[in-house]
Amino acid sequence: MKSVTIVGGGLVGSLWAVYLSREGYKVKVFEKRTDMRNTVMSAGKSINLATSYRGWKALDAMGLGDEVRTIAKPMYGRTMHLPDGAKNFQKYGQGDQAIYSVSRGGINVKMLEAAAKNAELYFNEDCIGVDLTNNICTFKNSVTGNVTEVKSDLIFATDGAFSAVRYNAMQKLDRFNYSQNYIEDGYKEILLPANADGSYKMEDETLHIWPRGRFMLIALPNQDGSFTCTLFMPVDGHEYSFKKLNNKEAINKFFAETFPDFYEMMPDVADKWDDYPLSSLAIIRCFPWHHNNTALMGDAAHATVPFFGQGMNCGFEDCTVMWELMKKHNHNWPEILKEYEVLRKPNGDAVQDLSLQNYLVMRDKVADPVYLLHRKVEARISTLYPDKYFPLYTMVSFTDISYHTALTKGNEQERMVSEFISDHGITDTTPVDVIDGYIKLKFGDKL
Amino acid sequence: MKSVTIVGGGLVGSLWAVYLSREGYKVKVFEKRTDMRNTVMSAGKSINLATSYRGWKALDAMGLGDEVRTIAKPMYGRTMHLPDGAKNFQKYGQGDQAIYSVSRGGINVKMLEAAAKNAELYFNEDCIGVDLTNNICTFKNSVTGNVTEVKSDLIFATDGAFSAVRYNAMQKLDRFNYSQNYIEDGYKEILLPANADGSYKMEDETLHIWPRGRFMLIALPNQDGSFTCTLFMPVDGHEYSFKKLNNKEAINKFFAETFPDFYEMMPDVADKWDDYPLSSLAIIRCFPWHHNNTALMGDAAHATVPFFGQGMNCGFEDCTVMWELMKKHNHNWPEILKEYEVLRKPNGDAVQDLSLQNYLVMRDKVADPVYLLHRKVEARISTLYPDKYFPLYTMVSFTDISYHTALTKGNEQERMVSEFISDHGITDTTPVDVIDGYIKLKFGDKL
Repeated sequence: MKSVTIVGGGLVGSLWAVYLSREGYKVKVFEKRTDMRNTVMSAGKSINLATSYRGWKALDAMGLGDEVRTIAKPMYGRTMHLPDGAKNFQKYGQGDQAIYSVSRGGINVKMLEAAAKNAELYFNEDCIGVDLTNNICTFKNSVTGNVTEVKSDLIFATDGAFSAVRYNAMQKLDRFNYSQNYIEDGYKEILLPANADGSYKMEDETLHIWPRGRFMLIALPNQDGSFTCTLFMPVDGHEYSFKKLNNKEAINKFFAETFPDFYEMMPDVADKWDDYPLSSLAIIRCFPWHHNNTALMGDAAHATVPFFGQGMNCGFEDCTVMWELMKKHNHNWPEILKEYEVLRKPNGDAVQDLSLQNYLVMRDKVADPVYLLHRKVEARISTLYPDKYFPLYTMVSFTDISYHTALTKGNEQERMVSEFISDHGITDTTPVDVIDGYIKLKFGDKL
Repeated sequence: MKSVTIVGGGLVGSLWAVYLSREGYKVKVFEKRTDMRNTVMSAGKSINLATSYRGWKALDAMGLGDEVRTIAKPMYGRTMHLPDGAKNFQKYGQGDQAIYSVSRGGINVKMLEAAAKNAELYFNEDCIGVDLTNNICTFKNSVTGNVTEVKSDLIFATDGAFSAVRYNAMQKLDRFNYSQNYIEDGYKEILLPANADGSYKMEDETLHIWPRGRFMLIALPNQDGSFTCTLFMPVDGHEYSFKKLNNKEAINKFFAETFPDFYEMMPDVADKWDDYPLSSLAIIRCFPWHHNNTALMGDAAHATVPFFGQGMNCGFEDCTVMWELMKKHNHNWPEILKEYEVLRKPNGDAVQDLSLQNYLVMRDKVADPVYLLHRKVEARISTLYPDKYFPLYTMVSFTDISYHTALTKGNEQERMVSEFISDHGITDTTPVDVIDGYIKLKFGDKL
């Protein structure tokens, strides 16, 4: 029975421990933080997570989906809040397709509980070195100060965007490519509490967006009637920036003028301003993703900005893919790891590109009539050819079409729809049956 | 008197120590390697360096140029070696303009000797940590094992492409952007010895190139009659790669077929193949270049691939620029460092882009008739308007026009020359006086 060290007991690490334990591996998980199962969770720097198809697929394969569903709130679309207070609902998919809001802490505890059934979990263990040649990880316990060396047959680094395994070992390898690029914008969470009776202050089965061009506010429902809201905007150097929101007066003025309906729901936003820190957002790329018997998974391999809600889903899909390769190659790890990185790297890159692209969509385009007309036409094509045409959002969130294919195909479709609209002079007043007629004329049975 | 810690006693670090000492700073230089002044130099992984205008300017400002000139060999142009053995000389500039081949070790020793006059130098001192808030560097001596903490007013990291200061401290800062990208190609040095009588086996006042499309061999003259030659080619995955040159037979066949004139001069190339290691080439970018009182200079800030011979020159120019800012801001370091990184970062990026671009020129275009026609026309424009038109190579190597301007202007000029050639149907048989006529017609006194 092969022994495995998993560095990082976050979402991907603990789920991957479940997979490996079920396959008969002897798994030890080492987590830097304290044991979340014993801690009162703070929303912290979480950004609520949106579980979608790929996430559920990876959970359901291990029978963990239903447990997570107990703490998930469906969101069937986005509710856009205009500056004048008007609202507009845009469905994410067809029928009851939804993405699901879960708290990072909540789902992490569920994963740790599942992992603990068959794997050994260690906490407060900081990875201070990795010997990639002999598969030895060195951990320093932040409580006792004890240093432990752990040798195993395989090492998986699921220790997040600032992976210690990557930093302490992989990055020092010759010909290891690496980049960390921060976007200009930071983010800050704001908790919009429930009403006194525990009810939600807004519609709860939706993701709320206040798109304002260069910045945006979003809100995801929690189970207790509150919303976790996040303001994304430039840190500095722009008309609107976090730097300028440096006193209560400025904060109140900004919210009253820019998000009046939100301000009405939370007039004490300035008092709560410092409850959460200003945080940064980075895209981290690297390659290769393995060396000898050590592999990077999840954010350690491909940390992204959160705007497509795919960070966790992509990390969970790493587990699905690795598991399928494990079966395909009959546990021959050199073969598995080689194919894993070749298969998966283009998708890591693509999910990052998609995430950056979707920031523009969320903060700007969802309020742009041209964009909305595109979506309307695309929805018609997809309704007429439900098995053949998938809008980009659908490919990413409601299928497991590879991210790379989704990105390529999505961009092609965008050009095609754009051309179609201009060729037929379609506007937002063109009746749906006319649009449908043009679509059938153009595509017939060719799609 | 302000105290300064310089981490890295390579070319830039020791020159910068001279500048700072002359300005009255109390300077300590800590170098990881042993003291080169006491060591027999190995050509090692050097790639001979080419000193050009910016390098001389920085040296001459401290009166060090003449000392370096004693170990420099001028190269007035490139001598291209075709597969059939034919040769072709292309001048680098006008008149006696030349770039100068020097050995890395030779010039480093000269710099250390100059620095030692006023600064304190420490060797075998490995930087294991930097406290950017309190300006404290921690060094571990690799011989004695002693750990020393050094506090100073200013810290300069001139510790090269894999800077310990950057890695141990800067890279951990929030919002620090960083990338290390290896190119597909590696390099290997080959020493072509002098004839028995000490004479050169080829013309000595020139840079030799064997351009072969996807790869190339180059040779730079040393003072002792030998040439330091370097083969640049893909490590793997191509028709010609280092991976395939894994036995003497393959090496001999490759040289005999690909570089027949070189093989004739060095028929024992296969026996010498393992004298130097296969090495890698990377572009390293980062930003910001300073934090509090610590700044990155030279390769630590902007390591590049060697194809424009500008790595050292750019690092030396960092000294010139910082020195000018020191005078401009009257030793007000917060102001100096802020302006330094804003001024210099676009030039660090540009020298990297220029270096990558020049690899294509050297390995491929110098043998391309279209490229050569462009250069011929450009040489005519530059001859007719000597004070107004500078070819890209001239701007980079024989002026201190900023790298960023050179890159932008060079690309504009390339488009302009291309258009000019096609508009007038110029070919390589068009007489020079006809070309001159077209040039005067087109530009008149407008240039």
